[in-house]
Amino acid sequence: MSRVVTLLSDFGTRDGYVAAVKGVLLARCPGATLVDVTHEISPGDVAAAAFVLAQATPYFPPGSVHLAVVDPGVGSERRAIACRVAEQLYVAPDNGILTRVLEGQASARAHQIDHPALRLPSLSQVFHGRDLFAPAAAHLASGAPLAGVGPKLANESLARTAWPEPTLGPDGGEGQVVYVDRFGNLVTNLPVGPEPPRGVTSVAGRDVPIHRSYSDVAPGSLVALCGSSGLLEVARNRGSAAESLGVGPGDVVTWRRPPRE
Amino acid sequence: MSRVVTLLSDFGTRDGYVAAVKGVLLARCPGATLVDVTHEISPGDVAAAAFVLAQATPYFPPGSVHLAVVDPGVGSERRAIACRVAEQLYVAPDNGILTRVLEGQASARAHQIDHPALRLPSLSQVFHGRDLFAPAAAHLASGAPLAGVGPKLANESLARTAWPEPTLGPDGGEGQVVYVDRFGNLVTNLPVGPEPPRGVTSVAGRDVPIHRSYSDVAPGSLVALCGSSGLLEVARNRGSAAESLGVGPGDVVTWRRPPRE
Amino acid sequence: MSRVVTLLSDFGTRDGYVAAVKGVLLARCPGATLVDVTHEISPGDVAAAAFVLAQATPYFPPGSVHLAVVDPGVGSERRAIACRVAEQLYVAPDNGILTRVLEGQASARAHQIDHPALRLPSLSQVFHGRDLFAPAAAHLASGAPLAGVGPKLANESLARTAWPEPTLGPDGGEGQVVYVDRFGNLVTNLPVGPEPPRGVTSVAGRDVPIHRSYSDVAPGSLVALCGSSGLLEVARNRGSAAESLGVGPGDVVTWRRPPRE
Repeated sequence: MSRVVTLLSDFGTRDGYVAAVKGVLLARCPGATLVDVTHEISPGDVAAAAFVLAQATPYFPPGSVHLAVVDPGVGSERRAIACRVAEQLYVAPDNGILTRVLEGQASARAHQIDHPALRLPSLSQVFHGRDLFAPAAAHLASGAPLAGVGPKLANESLARTAWPEPTLGPDGGEGQVVYVDRFGNLVTNLPVGPEPPRGVTSVAGRDVPIHRSYSDVAPGSLVALCGSSGLLEVARNRGSAAESLGVGPGDVVTWRRPPRE
Repeated sequence: MSRVVTLLSDFGTRDGYVAAVKGVLLARCPGATLVDVTHEISPGDVAAAAFVLAQATPYFPPGSVHLAVVDPGVGSERRAIACRVAEQLYVAPDNGILTRVLEGQASARAHQIDHPALRLPSLSQVFHGRDLFAPAAAHLASGAPLAGVGPKLANESLARTAWPEPTLGPDGGEGQVVYVDRFGNLVTNLPVGPEPPRGVTSVAGRDVPIHRSYSDVAPGSLVALCGSSGLLEVARNRGSAAESLGVGPGDVVTWRRPPRE
Repeated sequence: MSRVVTLLSDFGTRDGYVAAVKGVLLARCPGATLVDVTHEISPGDVAAAAFVLAQATPYFPPGSVHLAVVDPGVGSERRAIACRVAEQLYVAPDNGILTRVLEGQASARAHQIDHPALRLPSLSQVFHGRDLFAPAAAHLASGAPLAGVGPKLANESLARTAWPEPTLGPDGGEGQVVYVDRFGNLVTNLPVGPEPPRGVTSVAGRDVPIHRSYSDVAPGSLVALCGSSGLLEVARNRGSAAESLGVGPGDVVTWRRPPRE
């Protein structure tokens, strides 16, 4: 059965860049199933790319190859890497874009991509997504072993982006907004346990009650809940919390748990 | 041969939501052919989703599965349904999104999705597209029978969105704009018969002649014609009728047929 | 193995138009691998479509079919054509959209699409992408011979869009910006030879040094380099050259080579 290759980038969708990458993938791995994660990462925003990549890719079948190219350092000395994390394969620049995917994955295995055969004959200095990363992804999607791309790298040597750590205690915690989605939902770095969260959050001087779903409050009202990635999220039912509160990445969110029974 | 699964939502394409849905689909129905209808429905705009779904999906091969998730009531008591309409299969919240697809289809057959195996183990209350609708769509795309998703529902019990009915007579009719497309073309609810339409339309106080194609008038001129869905449409050749006329959904369009020969 | 069909249009992605085209393709060529080049060409911008098409499609496997529909003359007398260029197949209106693809390809072979079986039974006068071009593309993707679509056309008879010719000499040259990408990079019509370009460019009264990659200058600085299509390009490292310089298509760029050693 053919392998899945996903693509994440900041290339946008109005030029021919993504299609050129896909052409290389299909020429070198005929029959691959291609899936776009997104190409609308803001140019060079490695941190947002790291978040989205970790949010979406674990749902893919084991052995899927994820090509992630947000690469402001293209043409510089930054390394190109291929990693196996859990049962997923990642091909990316070594610039921190795998930070969230690698979180807590001690058994991840990374190799540098440096095998000369894994490049288009005319390697451009401005478009490694097409000329270097796509051939490597096609190679892995064709079933080639990870070790074939180049030498093994120590996990500690891999680049990481900053990720603000929340402070958490029995009575609650303080975290930050780490991502704003298209609905204006404010995703925080506050992890929610297996139980539905309870209590109240506070953001931008406003108390926001915690419920189970958007529909638990009236349209237009603010609500906090466990988001789809298991992180506390502040939303506005049928509206944008980000817009109405004027809040974005980096802004503080506190969570006060109710007294323990 | 693998089944086709299409996806329509208001998830946008800049976050990882659509990709997570596709990951679940490919993990549960390997080899499925995935096609995006659109993910740019305005958040919660069930009526626009109903229009676009009916416009595009009839062209797909028999047995295609159409996953349509514009779901402002996620987490509430609204039902999840799977329907067979003509030879197409639909998986969606029961909130009216199938209204246009069901129009005039007395033989449509609907089932509630409530089989516990058709859910991800950790069902989120905020992302049923991934956790509930995608597994059901993958199940049907794998060839499972419709009745396996849950109990049969009476067609009359299905939710519907409002659709303004035009008034039509031998001399013409009065209708409304029901959709504005990316070109600024004004799609009305006035159906055109098998013959090319004739006469003149009136919108926003302007008379607009009816022709066969955009090119029948000079660039910049207004023209009315039979649109690609068989509905009367007001357009501006190489421009936007919506913008130049300041007209949108709900605005009245009249059609005066020429006197009969 | 199934054939690849790519799609390029100005249909946008928020309506159901692209999906209807894909439905027709999959109904008539089951198992085809569909790839979007872009659907965000500005409405009717045939010149931009011609550029993007030539930029992306050569990377696809031999025998791929490229469906390119930016078609402001839909419904007029303009011809529909299918062309073989190098090992790629193109299906498009004869309005110049293949200009860049055909450049220097004397062995290209074009046929008019006029076989009545290659149309949907109800041919709309406003949506030939779905009703005429998609069936023809599916026909070719199914392995049918090019000559089956209709009579051969002389290459000289094919429509072309204007493409400004640069003036080039041993000391440099003068060209124009022909395309601005999503990053704000200014792509010119000045071809770069096999050697890395050297010297300095001038645009909007500013001298811009030539380097190998964006990273060769500090963030925020302007740089000229060989772009991913082998054309001289003016960029701003981690920024938009188009925005900061106020420059766009048609603006002049000069290139002064260093004195020969």
